[in-house]
Amino acid sequence: MTTRPADSAARDLFDEMARWPIYDPHSHIDPHRPAARHLDEILGYHYYTELAHSAGMPAALVAAELSPDTRVANLAGWLDRIDNTVQYSWLTEIARTFYDFTDPITSYNIGDLAAKADKHSQGSAWDDRVWHATNLETVFLTNDFDDPLTGWDTTKFVPCLRTDDLVLKLHQPKTLERLRKTTNLDVQDLEGLKKSIGVLFDRFVKAGARACAISLPPDFSPTPANPKLAVTPIRRALNGLDLRPDEHEEIRRTVFWMLAEFCADYKLPFDLMIGPIRDIYPAGVSGGRDLFDRRVSLREYRDLFNHFSSVTFPVSTLSPDASAELVAYAWIFPNVVPMGHWWYSNVPTFIRADLEARLQAVPKTKQVGYYSDAYKLEFVLPKFNTFRKTLAEVLAEDAIKGRGWSVERALELARLVLIENPKRIFARPAS
Amino acid sequence: MTTRPADSAARDLFDEMARWPIYDPHSHIDPHRPAARHLDEILGYHYYTELAHSAGMPAALVAAELSPDTRVANLAGWLDRIDNTVQYSWLTEIARTFYDFTDPITSYNIGDLAAKADKHSQGSAWDDRVWHATNLETVFLTNDFDDPLTGWDTTKFVPCLRTDDLVLKLHQPKTLERLRKTTNLDVQDLEGLKKSIGVLFDRFVKAGARACAISLPPDFSPTPANPKLAVTPIRRALNGLDLRPDEHEEIRRTVFWMLAEFCADYKLPFDLMIGPIRDIYPAGVSGGRDLFDRRVSLREYRDLFNHFSSVTFPVSTLSPDASAELVAYAWIFPNVVPMGHWWYSNVPTFIRADLEARLQAVPKTKQVGYYSDAYKLEFVLPKFNTFRKTLAEVLAEDAIKGRGWSVERALELARLVLIENPKRIFARPAS
Amino acid sequence: MTTRPADSAARDLFDEMARWPIYDPHSHIDPHRPAARHLDEILGYHYYTELAHSAGMPAALVAAELSPDTRVANLAGWLDRIDNTVQYSWLTEIARTFYDFTDPITSYNIGDLAAKADKHSQGSAWDDRVWHATNLETVFLTNDFDDPLTGWDTTKFVPCLRTDDLVLKLHQPKTLERLRKTTNLDVQDLEGLKKSIGVLFDRFVKAGARACAISLPPDFSPTPANPKLAVTPIRRALNGLDLRPDEHEEIRRTVFWMLAEFCADYKLPFDLMIGPIRDIYPAGVSGGRDLFDRRVSLREYRDLFNHFSSVTFPVSTLSPDASAELVAYAWIFPNVVPMGHWWYSNVPTFIRADLEARLQAVPKTKQVGYYSDAYKLEFVLPKFNTFRKTLAEVLAEDAIKGRGWSVERALELARLVLIENPKRIFARPAS
Repeated sequence: MTTRPADSAARDLFDEMARWPIYDPHSHIDPHRPAARHLDEILGYHYYTELAHSAGMPAALVAAELSPDTRVANLAGWLDRIDNTVQYSWLTEIARTFYDFTDPITSYNIGDLAAKADKHSQGSAWDDRVWHATNLETVFLTNDFDDPLTGWDTTKFVPCLRTDDLVLKLHQPKTLERLRKTTNLDVQDLEGLKKSIGVLFDRFVKAGARACAISLPPDFSPTPANPKLAVTPIRRALNGLDLRPDEHEEIRRTVFWMLAEFCADYKLPFDLMIGPIRDIYPAGVSGGRDLFDRRVSLREYRDLFNHFSSVTFPVSTLSPDASAELVAYAWIFPNVVPMGHWWYSNVPTFIRADLEARLQAVPKTKQVGYYSDAYKLEFVLPKFNTFRKTLAEVLAEDAIKGRGWSVERALELARLVLIENPKRIFARPAS
Repeated sequence: MTTRPADSAARDLFDEMARWPIYDPHSHIDPHRPAARHLDEILGYHYYTELAHSAGMPAALVAAELSPDTRVANLAGWLDRIDNTVQYSWLTEIARTFYDFTDPITSYNIGDLAAKADKHSQGSAWDDRVWHATNLETVFLTNDFDDPLTGWDTTKFVPCLRTDDLVLKLHQPKTLERLRKTTNLDVQDLEGLKKSIGVLFDRFVKAGARACAISLPPDFSPTPANPKLAVTPIRRALNGLDLRPDEHEEIRRTVFWMLAEFCADYKLPFDLMIGPIRDIYPAGVSGGRDLFDRRVSLREYRDLFNHFSSVTFPVSTLSPDASAELVAYAWIFPNVVPMGHWWYSNVPTFIRADLEARLQAVPKTKQVGYYSDAYKLEFVLPKFNTFRKTLAEVLAEDAIKGRGWSVERALELARLVLIENPKRIFARPAS
Repeated sequence: MTTRPADSAARDLFDEMARWPIYDPHSHIDPHRPAARHLDEILGYHYYTELAHSAGMPAALVAAELSPDTRVANLAGWLDRIDNTVQYSWLTEIARTFYDFTDPITSYNIGDLAAKADKHSQGSAWDDRVWHATNLETVFLTNDFDDPLTGWDTTKFVPCLRTDDLVLKLHQPKTLERLRKTTNLDVQDLEGLKKSIGVLFDRFVKAGARACAISLPPDFSPTPANPKLAVTPIRRALNGLDLRPDEHEEIRRTVFWMLAEFCADYKLPFDLMIGPIRDIYPAGVSGGRDLFDRRVSLREYRDLFNHFSSVTFPVSTLSPDASAELVAYAWIFPNVVPMGHWWYSNVPTFIRADLEARLQAVPKTKQVGYYSDAYKLEFVLPKFNTFRKTLAEVLAEDAIKGRGWSVERALELARLVLIENPKRIFARPAS
């Protein structure tokens, strides 16, 4: 269990929240292999490899070619340099909760920990064990558009159509090949593209998908597509021809707008994750090469929010200093929902600042508290606990002590943002 | 009364401040009808309609065509979704303080509340009652340039020349028509415009105005006007001809600079309210359609601050994350005064952050603590109380506990920023 | 001594830190006259003159032509307007610690204080006294490129090559003259420039320099130099010919890149101080004319960080709201080190926010806690105490109370960021 809040009012709130099931509206869990069977699947999380690398560890020490045991042993030697981080605290909580391991993790005992974390023999029983220990009710996935979406319980592992490739990589032959293959359509032009994306939405919604999602670079500005202008660039892209920068721009705007239209048609929320620049640091470890440009504004999204008034846009922004603007946009636009605390903003001090502002200025029914963004089930609990602790502290300080709320009222709000709001906002569309 | 601070040192400071008169250097009060006579004038404040709309209420439920009773009844059904907000807390404080109504406000009891809030029979006696209950000493108005400025006590309700229309809407026929009518001048060109604006300043100052004010969009950059370049666009605008974007820009820069020159001549502070973009969300409720672009910098105002060294510029910035920059500019420029906490920044957690920085880095004699921005007198007290509570908490924590200040010293600073500074900065110009 | 923290756990941490020596990796100390011999050298610090000027004091009252006694007497009359600032608290701590003067400083007693602060008769013995009272171990200097670097103990006063003039003022005849004189080279072109800068690095490193440093404006974007493009502009600059804006840009990019190459060759950290715009307020007091544009992003530095992977870049950003981005860049790039809290960001509330984020998300071995930026030795202690107090409070609240750390673990982290990290990062290169 995570360190409980020191303040007794906050601790009581936290203890209550800790008894609740977890509803996790965004993750990268693999439903076929949700939990980790080797410690490398835990320590290989990019937070550890990138922080250790940032602290001096050569990227080669965690290269994909190495054996999992070697990677784990290598990384262990650098953990003491990052043991101050919140990410490290998730690791110790996992070790304690799931592996009954309470010592500081070092090069000397990493073998013991790896042995305890070896769950190959348990197979899917271990997945169930982590699921129940986490008290997990539902977790959303991130599915490639050509994911067959079969082989798991989609009421527990909810599909979500991730669309970055369609918008940002349409010109890459591989994207088109995957699209043609999964839709069985010979996509050649704008009309064909639209038809094929319709096939995807249809398949995803039938398979229980409850959201469409995309991450967008800071320079992206969604504006109404001009089909006439887009016809040629789209055809060129679909035929593997070279594109000018303005054609690339026209394509991504057009495809993005098309996706929003399908979200309207299929009544799917469209998760916008705004900010990352991919591969800023190419020599970094896998998953640890992206950053952002803080000069970003939701003003660029005004046409989108206005035009698609029936579509709910759960928005996550990447740059911590952009979050106050999100509060204002969520306060005005009915279809803008502030969602969780993402990646570089998923740090307690930033979460706390965001939470205070959202609790004071955004309708309580619109706030989606948190999502884990996890790749392995084991991370859902410690990450949610970090959030629940911060939420408990903010409610104890700002609402109970500061505004005279009762404990019940504070817990009602906590339940809204943690469970009821995401359940309602991501409800299965009525058919 | 607002919830008093939980901390006893802060509570003592707050209790003392709560006994002080209120000096409110910016509002939208109508001096002819300052207090609300129907609950709709309270619940119709854009904060409630926009937050309820953001939480799902159709804008049509509070449309201008509906009767006030209907609007109030409609809105009441949505208040439970926004009862976490600071804006809602102002409402409950008003209900308690002015209507002796302490229950949560719901669809069931809204009729009772509306009955208690019906002050038509009391007429202006109710204005006086609210004025005295608020312990209001002075409140600044926001007057259109063609306001006749007659019919009220201008030592209590201080006129303030609002100039947005002149700078941003000069090309609209209605603006020119109003200008010609109020000045009795046949304004046709730059010279005529200048003469007419001189007439406005003269009239306002004679009527007791103590500030000129304007709100400016984030892309505005005031630079020295070039009269030669401006002559033609101004003439075109004044004659209703079409304008190119660069001509619009030239006009607003020229008129703005001219206003600053008159502020210098008439020794009027020039309130700059930087940031709003109007009508970003056209389908919103009245007053709830504006937002901002957070990418704004006071660097754009350097020429203005340098050129008009004799003009005091009380500055409010709209984007909460821009406030640290304002601290730095106020720390260097003698004529830049950080003023209050505006609109989307008027949220306790943002106020607190701003206050801490201003108290640690801006000369204490330069800080204008707060203004209500209220449309009805009833809001002055709860809004000021929110500020006084936050100020009390910051002083108790940072100054008394953190730096060993005496209670007297903390209260002296509070009195400066709440009363003495605004009184001095907005003093009636010596004639 | 500074006001100790009110919280007892924080106070214990602070008291322990207060016993440690100070390692100060950036200052503007003059090694030939490190301590102040006249009070004017204390009160003349730009923080006091600029804040007093901002609060209303005419700049002429502290003009260089006046006698030091007159300047001091003049300034004293304005101190009561800025006695709320953190900068003022350094002054009172200096008065108490070094002059045994505990009264509030006013026009009436300023003569007494000046008398106590007159150390002319003690000469360099006073330097030693301040050095020891401060428990100073090492302080880094800011040396012009043509500093002869002789006449002091470079293990105590560590040279640092400041390169603003070379990058930003190469076109000024005086710069070139100084460069030719100090290198004895007839610099005429790009090759000659490179050779001459090599001579500078050689001399500085031989004299014990441990860093190269530069402050850069917000619009600077370091990208790989194109020697072919730079040849002509550089030659034109070195021959005093007029330059187009794009040529200026090419020159500063080229010289900056060249400096980074030398840092790689000589294994010197390259301190980047990002943000200031010089002379925004030309009528200000000396040293109080610079500000910034908050719209700045480290994204502009990606090519630099990628290309020079062997060079450590200790980075300070000027705009307080830019600091969360620095946390993210330091978390990903191994060679980006967040360094101290600079100038307009050197305010406790900003330091606190930065510290919380760095402690939660940046490897502990990469953080350089603080530097004094002082011009006179007397300021090192109060400035470091402000930092140590804030660090103690953050550790007590966030680490000990919030995360259950032991006092020892908290102190270990404090020692890292205050002493061990800067010592390691700025270690004398192995020869």
